[in-house]
Amino acid sequence: MTLVNENFLKLQAGYLFPEVGRRVRAYKAKNPGAKIISLGIGDVTQPLPPAVISAMKKAVDEMGNAATFHGYGPEQGYDFLINAIIENDFRPRGVDLEPSEIFISDGAKCDTANIQEIFGLDNIVAVTDPVYPVYVDSNVMAGRTGQANKNGQYEKIVYMPCTAENNFVPELPSTPVDIIYLCFPNNPTGAVATKEILAEWVDFARDNKAVILFDAAYEAFITDPDIPHSIYKIEGAKDIAIEFRSFSKTAGFTGVRCAFTVVPKQLKAATCDGRAVEVNPLWSRRHTTKFNGASYISQVGAAAVYTAEGKKQIRQIIDIYMNNAALIRQSLTKLGYQVYGGVNAPYIWMKTPDGLSSWDFFDRLLKKAHIVCTPGAGFGAAGEGYVRLTAFGQPESVKEALERIKDIS
Amino acid sequence: MTLVNENFLKLQAGYLFPEVGRRVRAYKAKNPGAKIISLGIGDVTQPLPPAVISAMKKAVDEMGNAATFHGYGPEQGYDFLINAIIENDFRPRGVDLEPSEIFISDGAKCDTANIQEIFGLDNIVAVTDPVYPVYVDSNVMAGRTGQANKNGQYEKIVYMPCTAENNFVPELPSTPVDIIYLCFPNNPTGAVATKEILAEWVDFARDNKAVILFDAAYEAFITDPDIPHSIYKIEGAKDIAIEFRSFSKTAGFTGVRCAFTVVPKQLKAATCDGRAVEVNPLWSRRHTTKFNGASYISQVGAAAVYTAEGKKQIRQIIDIYMNNAALIRQSLTKLGYQVYGGVNAPYIWMKTPDGLSSWDFFDRLLKKAHIVCTPGAGFGAAGEGYVRLTAFGQPESVKEALERIKDIS
Repeated sequence: MTLVNENFLKLQAGYLFPEVGRRVRAYKAKNPGAKIISLGIGDVTQPLPPAVISAMKKAVDEMGNAATFHGYGPEQGYDFLINAIIENDFRPRGVDLEPSEIFISDGAKCDTANIQEIFGLDNIVAVTDPVYPVYVDSNVMAGRTGQANKNGQYEKIVYMPCTAENNFVPELPSTPVDIIYLCFPNNPTGAVATKEILAEWVDFARDNKAVILFDAAYEAFITDPDIPHSIYKIEGAKDIAIEFRSFSKTAGFTGVRCAFTVVPKQLKAATCDGRAVEVNPLWSRRHTTKFNGASYISQVGAAAVYTAEGKKQIRQIIDIYMNNAALIRQSLTKLGYQVYGGVNAPYIWMKTPDGLSSWDFFDRLLKKAHIVCTPGAGFGAAGEGYVRLTAFGQPESVKEALERIKDIS
Repeated sequence: MTLVNENFLKLQAGYLFPEVGRRVRAYKAKNPGAKIISLGIGDVTQPLPPAVISAMKKAVDEMGNAATFHGYGPEQGYDFLINAIIENDFRPRGVDLEPSEIFISDGAKCDTANIQEIFGLDNIVAVTDPVYPVYVDSNVMAGRTGQANKNGQYEKIVYMPCTAENNFVPELPSTPVDIIYLCFPNNPTGAVATKEILAEWVDFARDNKAVILFDAAYEAFITDPDIPHSIYKIEGAKDIAIEFRSFSKTAGFTGVRCAFTVVPKQLKAATCDGRAVEVNPLWSRRHTTKFNGASYISQVGAAAVYTAEGKKQIRQIIDIYMNNAALIRQSLTKLGYQVYGGVNAPYIWMKTPDGLSSWDFFDRLLKKAHIVCTPGAGFGAAGEGYVRLTAFGQPESVKEALERIKDIS
C-alpha cells in the first residue's frame, strides 16, 4: 500500500496569497466598477532592461543553429555566469569565492526550500516571526516539525519575534538551534542588519555549531553604504553560512528564472557520531541529482546584468522602485501612520491604525480605497497588526493609491 | 550542532557520466590527435526548430515591454501550454485530462527526482535493473534505503532485472512493493511495453495498492502504432499512475528546460492508519512551495511545439535521430553484434562481444576506434555485459563511427 508523506497533512491550509486573491476576486465580483490598485504585489512590474533582452535574443538565435546550439549545461551553471557573479557581486566587495562555491539555479524560492534536504531531520530550525512561509513549509514537509498550534506555529520550530521593539531584528535564541534562517533586507518587514548585528549572529552560529541560511535576495535594494550586501563580509561567516541570491527582484527575472546559492567549501556540519562533513559536496550532489541546470537563455540574460550597460539599466529600474518606497514611506508618515522598512528594501511594513487586525485593515483598504495590501498576520503571529506594502508597482499607480489612502485617513 | 542528512553518505561515489568523462579526458590527454566520436551522448545535437525559435524570440520581446511583460507565472504552468498539451498529446489519443492534473516544470529529471517527496519513507521502492540512476539516488537521499552492497544495490530497494531473456521488460514483483518506477520507451535499453504488458502492471498496482511512476520522456520516439504513448491508455491507470513527460528529447529542450507531470485527481494513497488521501493536492502543494514555475520563455517555446509548423519540424528532427538508430542497429547486426532497442526509442542496448565487461568494452572502443559509449554496468548490475549507444549524434558522425567499428570488428 502506498503511503503518503503525512508531514504534508500538517501544513496549514490557505497559503497567504491565495486567500488575498480570493478576497479581491470576491470584492471585484460584487463591485465590477472598482479600479483596484495593488500595493501588496510581490512581483516586479518594470520590463527587463534592453541589455538583458538583446542578450537573450542572441541566446535564442544560438539555439536555432547547430554550431551554437546549447543542450544540457553543467547543472551547477555556466562558468561565464559564475565568473561574472564572482567578479561583480563579491570580489569588489572584498569577498573571495571559488567557482565551485556557486550554484546557479532557477530561483531562490527553490533553493531556500531545497537546501534543508542536505541536513538531518533532527536539527532544530529557527525562523524569524514574521517570516517568508517557504522556509517553514519546506521543513514541515520534510518532517522537522510537529503539528501547528492555533497561531499556525509548528511544534519544534523556534520562532524569533521581530517587532518594532527590537527594530525587527531578532534576539539571539536562548534555546539550542541548529539551522537559522535569516533574510536581510527582510521580506516582509524591510528591516536590515548592520555589520555589528550580523557579526553577533555569525559568532553565535560559530559558538553553537549552527548553520545560518542567509537569504540576500533583496541586497540590490540596499542604499546605506554601511549595510553589508553579503554575510561573507563578516569574518568567519564562510565557516557557518550559506547565502542565497536572486536575479528576480534585482533584475526583473521573476518570469525568467535565475538565481544562485553560495556554499563555501569550508562550511562543515556533523554526523550523529560527531564526524565533520563538508556541506558543499552534499549540495553539489543534491543539485546535480535533483536538478538539471537553469535555462541557457536565462543564464545568458543573467550574465548581461553584469555588463556596463546592464548595470546602468538595472540601477535605473531599482531607482524607480526605491522612489516608490520613499514616496510610500513619506506619504504614510505624513498621514500619521507608523511605517518601517522601505529605505534599504522594497518592502514597507505598516502598523495598522486603530488597533485593527491585519485582515480587518486589509478589508478596510480594499473596500474603502480599492487598494490591496498583504496582511502581516499571514507571515506569522508577530505580523498581526501589520500589513506589508511593496514598492514594485507602477509609479503612477503608487501615487494614486497614496492619494486614495489620504482620502480615507 | 548542525547534523547532515546522513543518507547522502550512502550514495555511491562516481556517478556514471563523470567517470566516462574522466576516462575520455585522460585518453585525449595522451592522444591529442585522436578524433573522438561519442555514441554515448545522452544529449540532443539538432538545433531547435524555427517555430520554437521564433516563438521564443517573440516571448523575449514581450519581456522587454511593460504592457506585455510576464513576471511570476502560475507555479503549475501557464494555461496556454497546459491546454496545448491536453489537446495534442492526450485528447487525440483518447485520454481525457483536466488542466489541474498537469504540472509544468523545468525538467523530467527534477520531477522524477522530486515526486518521491510526497510519499512516506516506509514505502518499498521497486526499480528496473538497469535503471536511470536518478530514481534510485533520490530515494537514497530521502532515506528510503539502507546501505549499498558491492554491486551498488541498496538494501530495501527491490531491483527487477531486465535482460534479453525477458525482452528487457521486468517480471511482476514477487514481494510487496509500494512505489514502482517504470520507463518506457526505456532508458537505457530502448525496450518498449505493449498494451498487454502495461495492463498487467496496472492490474498489479491496483491489486497491491501500489503507485506506478511512469516515465514517458521518450514517447515521441515510438514508431509502432500498437505501442501506447501514455500509461493512461490502459483502463484504470488513472487510479494508480503518475506520468512524466519532457520536451527535452522530443523537441531539443535539454538546454531550454521544460517538462510536465500528470497527476490524476482520482489517484489516492494512504495514511498509516488507512485513510485514503488524494495525491494531486500533495504534489500541487510541493510544486507551489518548492518551485516557482518554468521560465515564461521556455513555456512559450514548448507551446510552439504543438503548432502545425512546430509539429512538422519536430517530426523531421526525430526522424533524423531514428534514422541514426536504424543505421546503428542494422550496421551492428550485420557485423554480428547483438543489439536491442532503437526501433521505438533513441537508445540501442548492445551486448559486449567476447564476454567483455561493460567497462572493458568501453575502453576497447575508446582506444581502438576512438568511440565513446556508455557502459551498461553504470545503470545497474544487470547492465553488466552491455553498453548503451544513443541515436542523438550528427548523422555523419554516426556513419563514421559505424565505419570505425566495422574496421575493428
